[in-house]
This record gives sequence, structure tokens and C-alpha cells, in this order.
Amino acid sequence: MTPAEQAAMARARELGLRVLGTTSPNPPVGAVLLDAAGTVVGEGATSPPGGPHAEVQALAQAGERARGGTAVVTLEPCAHTGRTGPCADALVAAGVARVVVAVPEPTRLAGGGAARLRAAGIDVELGAEQAEAELGALAAWLTGVTEHRPHVVWKVASTLDGRVAAADGTSRWITGPEARAEVHRLRAGCDAVLVGSGTALADDPQLTVRDAEGRNVERQPLRVVLDRRGRVPATARVHDDAAPTHVSRAADPAALLAELHDRDVRRVLLEGGPTLAAAFLAAGLVDEAVVHVAPQLLGAGTPLVGDLGISTITSALHLHVTDVTRLGGDVQIRLRSTRHTGGPGPTGGGS
Amino acid sequence: MTPAEQAAMARARELGLRVLGTTSPNPPVGAVLLDAAGTVVGEGATSPPGGPHAEVQALAQAGERARGGTAVVTLEPCAHTGRTGPCADALVAAGVARVVVAVPEPTRLAGGGAARLRAAGIDVELGAEQAEAELGALAAWLTGVTEHRPHVVWKVASTLDGRVAAADGTSRWITGPEARAEVHRLRAGCDAVLVGSGTALADDPQLTVRDAEGRNVERQPLRVVLDRRGRVPATARVHDDAAPTHVSRAADPAALLAELHDRDVRRVLLEGGPTLAAAFLAAGLVDEAVVHVAPQLLGAGTPLVGDLGISTITSALHLHVTDVTRLGGDVQIRLRSTRHTGGPGPTGGGS
Repeated sequence: MTPAEQAAMARARELGLRVLGTTSPNPPVGAVLLDAAGTVVGEGATSPPGGPHAEVQALAQAGERARGGTAVVTLEPCAHTGRTGPCADALVAAGVARVVVAVPEPTRLAGGGAARLRAAGIDVELGAEQAEAELGALAAWLTGVTEHRPHVVWKVASTLDGRVAAADGTSRWITGPEARAEVHRLRAGCDAVLVGSGTALADDPQLTVRDAEGRNVERQPLRVVLDRRGRVPATARVHDDAAPTHVSRAADPAALLAELHDRDVRRVLLEGGPTLAAAFLAAGLVDEAVVHVAPQLLGAGTPLVGDLGISTITSALHLHVTDVTRLGGDVQIRLRSTRHTGGPGPTGGGS
Repeated sequence: MTPAEQAAMARARELGLRVLGTTSPNPPVGAVLLDAAGTVVGEGATSPPGGPHAEVQALAQAGERARGGTAVVTLEPCAHTGRTGPCADALVAAGVARVVVAVPEPTRLAGGGAARLRAAGIDVELGAEQAEAELGALAAWLTGVTEHRPHVVWKVASTLDGRVAAADGTSRWITGPEARAEVHRLRAGCDAVLVGSGTALADDPQLTVRDAEGRNVERQPLRVVLDRRGRVPATARVHDDAAPTHVSRAADPAALLAELHDRDVRRVLLEGGPTLAAAFLAAGLVDEAVVHVAPQLLGAGTPLVGDLGISTITSALHLHVTDVTRLGGDVQIRLRSTRHTGGPGPTGGGS
């Protein structure tokens, strides 16, 4: 990659992140078009299903300036006709000279894009900064491709001493307004938000994405309540008409995720209490965690996570810190399951 | 303050921090000498008791270049003769034209320095960036002056879910080598390191300051074991000859701190377990906290802090985050008691 292509790839990853949560079951791809001199002449990201793909948007912006230029994309352009035409053909028709791709297409259905581009005489580089792209906006979609289940982001707010509620059950508000606003941004980046019946009953959350003024935004993730015994009444806020709701009676986390995968959910925010979190963690079904730590101490109360069946320190469940930020008076720690820290994926190469 | 004086004050605060833990019962002061053109011509910090004070060191470096220059110091120069002569007189003798002071001397014994300087025709500015200096190296010494007790820094290493040991009591090592090295730096900045008999018996810690090669350094803080019932045997590592040790039978945290204050301890690192930590926290006797969070989950085990008598969220003990850093794979959160967040002290002004 040239320096201009590297900058374009960083921008393409960012464009992909911006549409996270709006494209499922399609991947949130970012694309940047450079003209022959290396100047940015077009940008795009995957539209909601049925809308134009990232490359097509970027090509539309670039127009004639795409000819002889370079397309920089986070995922290999598709070669199949789905709800939209093949992106590979659009790139050929626009006369681009070179295509730089981060992640090779992992599905057989959409694959063959690079081959089709090369057959048309286009120079194709695959695997450019692949690991960064795989850990970014595409992570959840890739989990879906490889594990046939949604990517799970566990979000929890606790005190410094790991309590999510005081001894009497009160928990509002442990964290401040900045951390609570971040929860709405997290929800907006997911296809579904999940709680158990315990949390639905104790906190009666609405589980919607609200803006800074507290109004529900237009696009809402699916609300999911795991309620095996049908304990949550129809009058609960999670059943209001602000967003769709799915009540699951799945027997375990894997079964629940399979249900959600069938509903095109690719990224789910787990906002349940310690029992549900422990079930997902013990099953190895948490991919990322976002922990909001409030600088408070309770000394007693509900622990952040329930029993994991771990009795000795060497058996502790290890995660991997990816980011630490201050949110107002609180601290946000982002983590990843250690399964996802291996650098470039199996298709590696390039760059 | 001029820009040169501001830079000198920042440097003086840093110089004070470098000698933290080596000057008690004297304050860890930093001083910078500027010549008439604003160029740094001398630097100094308080020596161990009996050695030269910060101003005298800076003056010695500056020599004749101090004449007509400015002394920038974190604490008002003393006017009394203790083990060393009055710093105010040394500044007058050196012919400095101006003295910029962050914190006015709060003790009657050493006070009067500014008056003596002004009487000699020197321009004196008091209260320059006073709050920053009060929250820095001088914080512990000021706690001693105002509360007649050592400043308490509570250090704890826990998992993400607030556990300091697994259900079977194992805890080595929750944090990685970088966090453990930081604990030695924390100890080096304190006059004493404190544990209860429970920790002494369970972990048998040596409680010394060790360098990167694991060797005990020359200057060691006092090791303190609160052991009311005389449970810790003479064979415990805390009783080896690597450093002095004080065994206390004090009835409560306040009594223990009074004992330590009498032994010239001004800054103590509380490294005890959840019971001792809870006793200090409940008594309002924790000034700062350093929490090392390891990205692990246990789901069970010893909590970070014992019962605080708090049952509802609105009674939670609130701290205030001052710094968040990544230490290797772990996260360090530094906090301050909310009593210490009020900005400039009662003597305010200046700058």
C-alpha cells in the first residue's frame, strides 16, 4: 500500500464503524475511491439491506474520476447478484486500475470478486491491514460467518468493588450521564439488546436507543427478553411500541443466539444481570465486554457476575483490554475475549 | 507568573514528587532558580532530614547567577532555624529579586518566611498554582499538618469483578509484572507500608521495595503489621532484617495512624485485605486509592472491600478518579477521597 492507500484504508474502517448496527445481515463495509493521483474522490459504506453497497456509493461520488484510480475497501467486493448487483462488476465498469482489500470474502456465495477483478486486468491486493479490519466493524459479521451466531457484546456498569446493585437491590444510578449516554451509542451499534426476565422485572428498562434529549431514535434494535417461565407481564416497558420485542424461551445461551441469528441479528448487546452474564461467559459466548466502572464502593450487594464455577486463581476467565477511557467521572474499560486476540485471521497475508 | 515562572513551577512540583517518601517529617518541596533573564540556573528538592532544603540546593547550583533572579518554590521558604538554617535568609543573602510560592507555610513554627523576604525588599507572590501543589507531593505532608495523622494511600489489586482472591484463597498473581513493579514504586513513595495480621499470615509478604532485579533497595519504608492478638510469628518474612518493622496493637485505624504520626510517618501505603481496607474506609481515613484491575473474572472469591455498613445505592462511598493508565495488560485507576477535591485550599489566592 502507498501512504495514500493506508490513509484511505483507515478511513474505510472508520466508515464501516459508522454504519455498525444498520446493515445486518450484510457486512458493514467501508470504501474509499482514490483517483490516479491518490486524491480521495469518493467514500461509501454499506446501506441498510436493499440499498447500495459501499463500493457503489463511493463510485457514484467519484464519477469519471474513478477511471484509472484505486478502490480501497475493508471487504472483498462481492461477485454475486443479491438484492443489488455485483460490486466487482461496478468497479470494472468504472475503469478503476487497482483495488486494495483488507479482508478476503469468507463466504462461498459472495466470493470470487478478486478473481473477477483480476480477470478484467485490475491489480488486486488482498489482506491489507486485515487484522485491524477484522477486529473493527467487520468483527461481528465475521463471527456470524464462522460461528453461525451473533457476536455478543456484554455491557455492565459496576462500582469499583464490582457491585451492580446495593444490598437492598437499588442500582440507579451507579454511573453518570456520560456513561449512560454511551450505553445508547452501544445499543445503536447492535441489532439486538438482550436482558433476562430478572432484569426486566427488577429494573423495568425500555431498552431503546434514545438521543441526548431522551427521545427514542428512529432505528431501534430488536429488544430480546429471555423469559423461560413467562414472568414478564405485557405491561412491562420492554413490551411498549417503541421498538420490536422478541421473547425467547431458549434453554441456554447457544440456543438463544441461534434464534437471533435466524432473525438476521449479527451483533447483540447483553445487558442482563449477573446470572445471564455468567451463563454467557461460562459458555464462552461473550466476544467483547464494555465495563463502566463508577468510582464508588458499596462493600456489599449484587456482584457484577454470578458463579462461573471457578474456585482457584489459575482458572480465572481471562479477557484482554483493548481500550480504556474516562467517561465523565467514570471509567470505561473495553475488553475482548482472548479467543479474538490472535492477529490476522486464517486467510492472512498482504500488506 | 510569567511563562518562564509557570514552567519553573511545574518543574518544581515534579522535583518535589521525586523525593516523596524520603523527606518525612519534612515536606517534599521542589525549587527552581531563574536568573534575571528567566533562564533556569538551579534546581533543588528537600533532602532527607538534616540535609539541605530545596531552596538552598537550588541556590548552591545557581551561585552568583541567582542575584537579581527569581526563586520558584512549591512551599513558602521557612524562617526558622531547625536542623538547617532559615531558607528565607539564604534567599535574601543570595540577592534574589523575586520569590514565587505555591503553598503558604501552614505551620506557625516555620511561618514568616514571606514576611522576612518582603522586609528585605524581595517581591513575593504567594498561592501560585496552589491547588496543583497541594494535590501533588505536598498532599501527604499537608494532611499531617491539618489532621495530625499520616496520609493514607490504599492500594488494591482485583479482578474486573472486584475479587482479590479466588474462592480457595489463591491470589498469586492477579496482576501482571508491570502492575507489580508499580507497587514497588508506590512503596518507595511512602514512609510506611501497612498490612493486617490476616494478610501477613495468608500471603507472608516481605513488604519491601525491590528493584527490577528483585533486590531490596537501600531506603526502605517502615513495615507495619496491625496484629492485636500477636498472631504473626517471628518467622514471618515481614520480620526479617530487610527493613524495620513496627507491630501495632492499636484498637482502630485512628489510633494506629496516631502511632505512626508519632514515628514521623507522613504517607502510608495501606496494602491490607478487605477487612482492614473496610475499617479505614468506614472511618474516612483513606485519602487516595490506587486500584489495579486485572482483566479477569472469577465469579466468586474474596471481595475487594469488606462490609462498609452500606445497604442502599445513595449511601455508596464516592471517590473521584484522578488518573487512569494501562499497566501492561492491567488497568490502574487512581482515585482521591472526595474530601480532597475542593480546588485551592483555605489560604487561596495568587496566580
